[in-house]
Amino acid sequence: MRLADVESMIVAVASDELSFSLQPSAQVVDYLGFYPRPSFRAEGACASGSMAIRAGWMNVASGLADLVLVVGVEKMTEVPTPTVTEVLGRAGDTVWEYPFGMTFPGYYAMLARAHMAKYGTTEEQLAAVAVKNHHYGALNPYAHMQKEITLDTALSSRVVADPLKLYDCCLISDGAAAVLLATETTAKRLRVDPIWLTGLGLGTGTLNIAHRADLTTLEASTEAAGQAYEMAHVTPRDIDVAVVHDCFTIAEIVAYEDLGFCPRGEGGQLIEERRTYIEGEIPVNVDGGLKSKGHPIGATGVAMAVEIVKQLRGEVGAGRQVPGAEIGLSHNVGGSGQHSVVHIFSRS
Amino acid sequence: MRLADVESMIVAVASDELSFSLQPSAQVVDYLGFYPRPSFRAEGACASGSMAIRAGWMNVASGLADLVLVVGVEKMTEVPTPTVTEVLGRAGDTVWEYPFGMTFPGYYAMLARAHMAKYGTTEEQLAAVAVKNHHYGALNPYAHMQKEITLDTALSSRVVADPLKLYDCCLISDGAAAVLLATETTAKRLRVDPIWLTGLGLGTGTLNIAHRADLTTLEASTEAAGQAYEMAHVTPRDIDVAVVHDCFTIAEIVAYEDLGFCPRGEGGQLIEERRTYIEGEIPVNVDGGLKSKGHPIGATGVAMAVEIVKQLRGEVGAGRQVPGAEIGLSHNVGGSGQHSVVHIFSRS
Repeated sequence: MRLADVESMIVAVASDELSFSLQPSAQVVDYLGFYPRPSFRAEGACASGSMAIRAGWMNVASGLADLVLVVGVEKMTEVPTPTVTEVLGRAGDTVWEYPFGMTFPGYYAMLARAHMAKYGTTEEQLAAVAVKNHHYGALNPYAHMQKEITLDTALSSRVVADPLKLYDCCLISDGAAAVLLATETTAKRLRVDPIWLTGLGLGTGTLNIAHRADLTTLEASTEAAGQAYEMAHVTPRDIDVAVVHDCFTIAEIVAYEDLGFCPRGEGGQLIEERRTYIEGEIPVNVDGGLKSKGHPIGATGVAMAVEIVKQLRGEVGAGRQVPGAEIGLSHNVGGSGQHSVVHIFSRS
Repeated sequence: MRLADVESMIVAVASDELSFSLQPSAQVVDYLGFYPRPSFRAEGACASGSMAIRAGWMNVASGLADLVLVVGVEKMTEVPTPTVTEVLGRAGDTVWEYPFGMTFPGYYAMLARAHMAKYGTTEEQLAAVAVKNHHYGALNPYAHMQKEITLDTALSSRVVADPLKLYDCCLISDGAAAVLLATETTAKRLRVDPIWLTGLGLGTGTLNIAHRADLTTLEASTEAAGQAYEMAHVTPRDIDVAVVHDCFTIAEIVAYEDLGFCPRGEGGQLIEERRTYIEGEIPVNVDGGLKSKGHPIGATGVAMAVEIVKQLRGEVGAGRQVPGAEIGLSHNVGGSGQHSVVHIFSRS
């Protein structure tokens, strides 16, 4: 197929400032020469890519277009890292948090401390998430950092926001990803093996995290997961492979619990017992995750869909392929849980 | 009805920088206490509000929600005007235009010069648009500047970007607007007189205006209008009332032509002969337009829908109501024509 066959586009870019543009979707339209066809930007900070997939699904399901291109992109390395951390920090509450010094390592450090206090989660369990994700990232040609690490490397890395250390934090990356969404008829005409987007969930949480009753969970994720499972008529046990939003290692442990992969408080144990490796009961982030593959914000949610589609088609290389995966899940968080998107994909 | 009845929300905000937030939709979710329900931001610079209405329509038509709230908002007056002009300038090409000094008065001054050279459009005709829009703005309690002006006032105001003068330029405003979109069944249950969104069009144009063959038209608008007329099964002659994107007076004249309200090159004559006043054949911007009502960017497209809905319901006050209006149109441009959205609304 050709770009000329695409009727409509949705673009995900998280930051005006990082793209140095007030309407970044126009940049993507221009690079592709997509005009005069419809395009607009969907945004929800770090969940922008999944918002764009949601908007693309609505674009198709509403009958406005048969074939929609969803493009996610972010360019983050042209400004210094402290500036990126500042810009991203404004995804939190810019009245009551950011002016007092809050940025994302700090938010997730608070989640980690709360989880450790309530459930006894350990720094070793956090580091174990990093070890797993770097293991799979080393096998992924699309990963930003293709490097195995040991538990000791992670535990002895410098502190960023206690108890989070360097290897508990995801990367700052440039990247882009794209998927095509089509009606059933068009999908079947284009491929013998289309993958179906069967469940969509989008939840929201308070802007100020001080307004949350419990920092060991993201209500937005629980809500999004509930919506997606219900729509797809599946339960957490039916998921064969998942990509979750591991912007920090604690975020992956919280996601295990919010998505129902284990009971509350047992997320640390789940990784410690290697149950989220490919050999385990629910392989998670076997693409390397944000932690090792990288987190070019607007691209992340779209890249998650790409990974799940490839997993369900059996196109992922040796060491990363989940054998016979039929149902996959993506989980993408915006900010410190102000938005969360869960999508469920199926081979049949 | 109550906010609790709303299932989903789409938020329009044009600028991260003006809202001082990386995910401005989270601010709106928070003010409303909307969590944990779905919400995301739709963006296309000055057309963001209409993008959000498009996304809201897709949200309903796709079956994901029966009742969707669309909120547009922008707060522009907390930073100095030159800063606002800088930020907005980045809606153009930030590689080949903005660094050399291009901002929006300059873009539209070039359109004006091109239109004058090709069609003999005059500065008096530009000023006549301002006189009309200030006349109606003076009658609109929601207008930012409720002040009549004369042709002389407009023509003798200081030059901003030749041939555009102060009164050729829209205002920098704070504002917000909201509409509810619903399925046919829900709409009929909620109101005896719902207004129907019968045509949607979204077009795009090149990022760099030097890539355009003709500066007297916006291809994105012609495309969007064509899509919307076709979907609604109407022609320009069927439109009883329109709100168009008069960020500068020349933009309204170009819109007359791009929307088919008059032949190419006759836009100046259309306003000179007062044919876009209420007594004329096609009343345009009888709410005061961006020129007098104001242009709080993210709110503008949503406010356009509010105005057309009120016109079609006969709820607009004396001096502004178009008698017996059955079909209305909104036209909302992003940047210097990188995006354009046309919507058609009908009473039956």
